[in-house]
Amino acid sequence: MAVGLEENTELHPVMGIKLAACSAGIYKKQRLDLALIECTQGTSVAAVFTRNAFCAAPVVVAREHLDKCNPLYLLINAGNANAGLGKAGYKAALQTCHHLAELRGCNRNAILPFSTGVIGEPLPVEKICNAIPELLDQLSEENWLQVNRAILTTDTVTKAVSRRITFNQHQITITGIAKGSGMIRPDMATMLAFIGTDAAINSDILDDVIKHAVNKSFNSISVDGDTSTNDACVIMATGKSSMPVINTPDSDIAIKFRDAVTEICIYLAQAIVRDGEGATKFVTLDIRHGIDSKECQIVAAAIAHSPLVKTALFASDPNWGRILAAIGRAEIDNLDVNKVTIYIGNICIIDQGERSPDYNESKGEKVFKEEEITITVDLNRGTENQLFWTCDFSYDYVRINAEYRT
Amino acid sequence: MAVGLEENTELHPVMGIKLAACSAGIYKKQRLDLALIECTQGTSVAAVFTRNAFCAAPVVVAREHLDKCNPLYLLINAGNANAGLGKAGYKAALQTCHHLAELRGCNRNAILPFSTGVIGEPLPVEKICNAIPELLDQLSEENWLQVNRAILTTDTVTKAVSRRITFNQHQITITGIAKGSGMIRPDMATMLAFIGTDAAINSDILDDVIKHAVNKSFNSISVDGDTSTNDACVIMATGKSSMPVINTPDSDIAIKFRDAVTEICIYLAQAIVRDGEGATKFVTLDIRHGIDSKECQIVAAAIAHSPLVKTALFASDPNWGRILAAIGRAEIDNLDVNKVTIYIGNICIIDQGERSPDYNESKGEKVFKEEEITITVDLNRGTENQLFWTCDFSYDYVRINAEYRT
Repeated sequence: MAVGLEENTELHPVMGIKLAACSAGIYKKQRLDLALIECTQGTSVAAVFTRNAFCAAPVVVAREHLDKCNPLYLLINAGNANAGLGKAGYKAALQTCHHLAELRGCNRNAILPFSTGVIGEPLPVEKICNAIPELLDQLSEENWLQVNRAILTTDTVTKAVSRRITFNQHQITITGIAKGSGMIRPDMATMLAFIGTDAAINSDILDDVIKHAVNKSFNSISVDGDTSTNDACVIMATGKSSMPVINTPDSDIAIKFRDAVTEICIYLAQAIVRDGEGATKFVTLDIRHGIDSKECQIVAAAIAHSPLVKTALFASDPNWGRILAAIGRAEIDNLDVNKVTIYIGNICIIDQGERSPDYNESKGEKVFKEEEITITVDLNRGTENQLFWTCDFSYDYVRINAEYRT
Repeated sequence: MAVGLEENTELHPVMGIKLAACSAGIYKKQRLDLALIECTQGTSVAAVFTRNAFCAAPVVVAREHLDKCNPLYLLINAGNANAGLGKAGYKAALQTCHHLAELRGCNRNAILPFSTGVIGEPLPVEKICNAIPELLDQLSEENWLQVNRAILTTDTVTKAVSRRITFNQHQITITGIAKGSGMIRPDMATMLAFIGTDAAINSDILDDVIKHAVNKSFNSISVDGDTSTNDACVIMATGKSSMPVINTPDSDIAIKFRDAVTEICIYLAQAIVRDGEGATKFVTLDIRHGIDSKECQIVAAAIAHSPLVKTALFASDPNWGRILAAIGRAEIDNLDVNKVTIYIGNICIIDQGERSPDYNESKGEKVFKEEEITITVDLNRGTENQLFWTCDFSYDYVRINAEYRT
């Protein structure tokens, strides 16, 4: 079960965004597995995609379409990643887009496709095309949670959150949903996130906002260190709010908006970790005083990806030697270990490279028995800090990923 | 149990190298845990050490001493890594060296200390010093296997091998021992390797030989991606063979010697993987046609470190989407996935970026059910190849690393 996470049903609709979900029969079992998001004309859309060189066909198509015109529709399926299939996968993704474009009489490039699920199986194009009319009939501003359910794979719970910000008596709504760390059969732990807002915003600023938010959230988590072929995070800004257009990058409202989107993304990213495969612990890595935020992220990732640290967390065993060794192998230049200070919870373990005289095993055990643990690493060599989130590594992780087809 | 690996008792003594092992009481349980290697005067020694920034005190001391004079003694303990202890650890390592130097009336810098075991506990200096006379009494050319036993931690089997090469009717003997992937309580998977030879060789060439051999062997394996604080590989060349001195880098004998040392190191490195914690499969990654061997290693490491690939291997599940996704996330420049070809065993899965039409699940399952599996990735973009070895990720890995102290 997810660590400290329950379904959040209090989602605000976003003016200008309608959604629908249905069961298209992609899964053998009857469940929601196809979703459609419709954006009103003039919506700005920005997105960040996986950097995996073997990226899935829908990622290639979505990138190409996004370059050509403003999207009107996002068509998302679970149960099949449409990845690892070469040209046939690319053609399949296009076919679903073209079918929807014909039904709506819109530009084919205004459709962005997204897929998540098993790699290497042909996309069931006909099932998807046949279900599109039902989706179009059901479009409503109220369906965020339905769409969230439709895009889950082995997630145990939906991941959704809304925020409202006001500025000079105008209000902006932001609602986001995500799926992550799910599998339908042994497959990649893919993540998708869709965020809608009624803000009116210059598209370059929207681009910067989503990159900033993703860097502080989805790029700062790890369940198992594997980057998916299908990862995508999309933000849609409809401009339907009464708030004047945000068109100055560093204005107060631009920063307030950016912070709210970042907060949404952090919530969703944390939700993915909390629902990480087999997770029993939620761990915050607080890396301080690096030369830049990138080196803080490298140190955090070295700790988060260490199977030895993760199994110690699972065992509630404060085996701090493993944390120290992971920091030591992080690929950053000229780390002076005599400056490094490490805390677990509020307990200092290593003080400027030396074992803290106050530390003892029972203090460490008390912290590691908690379900939520913070590990603080102070590099003492710069001014940048970075938060990073991860989970432990349990028998259930091996079971989920090893035994599905055996 | 180790995959396809049994104790090798047929080790050749090396003229000029004497060894001894004893039980110094570092472990609570009575077992061999302290070892001494004595090299004859004039022995050339070269070594490669961990690049972990938090390297252990003995690594710091050994590096310093090696810079100052030719070593005469290697003092090695199991049961305690003497790591993570700051200045106190450094002082403890020096104390053991100084004690031995006084007993033998030799230069303090002629002693190299090595430790493996738990991180963060004070080194039992007195126990070690008290046991040194017993070690000195027992020095013999026949004790390679005894020393191998003394340096194991949770290894299930010794890792040792000998080779003899002849050149112009002269013979050189090379014998190597290693320990690796062991833990005594939740701790780093450390590795140590000691190789002796009676060859006479220029010390710069010996340096190059060991660097070459380590790169092709110990730097080409992974059990869990964690780099130890204590890793070291040492080669000692006594010059007692009748073979003339090797003092031309690219001479036939220099290359023959380098290849023999590399073969020894590959055997020992593979033995570490075969005895990897919880391992049930031994996997060879054969990466071909990269631009350089470094990028081949990066691709191999991305596959070898993927928990998703490793759990699929454990399950004998030919989930090739995970292999493909791991290659895709490897940090190499401008990978053209349309050129990549992937085989498991002799079965082609991906042919130039497209799913092979001949592949089917049952063919893949047959290969993955084997205890030893080769995965070949042809990048088709250069002339360099690299082999890399890894193992799977099982329940026992989690058990060994999570449950020891719970």
